[in-house]
Amino acid sequence: MFSRNATAAIIIVGNEILSGRTRDANAYWLAQQLKAIGVMLRRISVIPDVIETIVNEVNALRAAHEYVIVCGGIGPTPDDVTRPAIAAAFGVPCEPHPEAVQILEKFYGARATPRRMTMAELPRGCELIYNPHSGAPGCRMENVFVLPGIPELVEGMFPQIAQRLRHGSLYEHEMRVQLGESEFADVMEEALRRFPAVDLGSYPAWHGEGWRCSLVFKSADEAALNEARAWFEEALARRAKVLGKEQG
Amino acid sequence: MFSRNATAAIIIVGNEILSGRTRDANAYWLAQQLKAIGVMLRRISVIPDVIETIVNEVNALRAAHEYVIVCGGIGPTPDDVTRPAIAAAFGVPCEPHPEAVQILEKFYGARATPRRMTMAELPRGCELIYNPHSGAPGCRMENVFVLPGIPELVEGMFPQIAQRLRHGSLYEHEMRVQLGESEFADVMEEALRRFPAVDLGSYPAWHGEGWRCSLVFKSADEAALNEARAWFEEALARRAKVLGKEQG
Repeated sequence: MFSRNATAAIIIVGNEILSGRTRDANAYWLAQQLKAIGVMLRRISVIPDVIETIVNEVNALRAAHEYVIVCGGIGPTPDDVTRPAIAAAFGVPCEPHPEAVQILEKFYGARATPRRMTMAELPRGCELIYNPHSGAPGCRMENVFVLPGIPELVEGMFPQIAQRLRHGSLYEHEMRVQLGESEFADVMEEALRRFPAVDLGSYPAWHGEGWRCSLVFKSADEAALNEARAWFEEALARRAKVLGKEQG
Repeated sequence: MFSRNATAAIIIVGNEILSGRTRDANAYWLAQQLKAIGVMLRRISVIPDVIETIVNEVNALRAAHEYVIVCGGIGPTPDDVTRPAIAAAFGVPCEPHPEAVQILEKFYGARATPRRMTMAELPRGCELIYNPHSGAPGCRMENVFVLPGIPELVEGMFPQIAQRLRHGSLYEHEMRVQLGESEFADVMEEALRRFPAVDLGSYPAWHGEGWRCSLVFKSADEAALNEARAWFEEALARRAKVLGKEQG
């Protein structure tokens, strides 16, 4: 439907999310960033810190989407297995990356223990994604971008990813109505038929006295979006008159 | 790793999550509920409101996990395609469910429009999950439980799912130490990192002469629990020696 825009998937690696201990913040933040630059996020997968699971997920999603962003599991503790998993997914060794070694030696100085230096072990042939906060870099392998799990680091590093992505424009319009979904579902169905280039979602919420719905129009085609929302408003106005008549 | 406990996957169906418009609350809440009853959550997938995508995801995950919980897309608007998608995944028709029809007719009375009644169209042979808030039920097909996307409704309906799941046991161990929290916070942090299957809480109390803390270990995995407490005791013993030496 959005053939003009690039698609992406996010993989969150983290037992702490699956155990309910931590509420993921990265997928939500990244979803907003991707949307802002017109990349269509098509999937979020939250998976455990298990090499085989990560390998399978990365390989499935990098074949199905133009971009894959992986968050989490690139720290120095033994449960951090994302770096070797990415290497395994691409069939290359995970080895000390010369520039990453330099960065970590400079960052840690005398505190550059062997344990910390494991964070310089990256898939052979990767491109670094620099980490302005804490030294340890992320990396890019083809269309797969690997970031840490700590939200502050993700936010500091994402701009480097954004500038590498092929952007499309995505237009959006939100319309709020004081109606229950079933009162306009047929209008919505008709709109989806009439305007195939426009995606249309309905998000209801109960507000004490009744239902309110947000209708969200999305399209890569601005003219089609405007045409669809104008048609929809007119159709609802006709409906309101009919409803008014029935009530009167 | 958690072979003794049942495993589960969650599927969140919702364009609004992928677009960054809404921050998902259901996966986080369900993760905590599942953990509390000893069911091991192994995956969360967030996917769009597209029938083919839902069918593929449901079929992959119901084969790989003992339970699958699907949230979202069971309302009355045309973007709500989860009901027919679940039917398609099981190869059965999506048709008016007699009890669901009765429930909706009773709930809506004169407002039971054809559009609203589409919410009674469910996979043939499903079991209903009753909705105490807004009438429209969820359903169970074999090991797949289908709920709405609105968090208040999910919370109202989940207890019916919980009582149908094969629960694992939840093991608990309390350790009392005569230390203040700051004296073992780093050990605790390390323990949480090392033993993701184990939850660990610290409850301090002042006893006249100093601090005492209760450390509570909880896990669905008894072996992991024992490993964690043994590791913790050893780490504290090492700490005590180091503290003694520094003081001496």
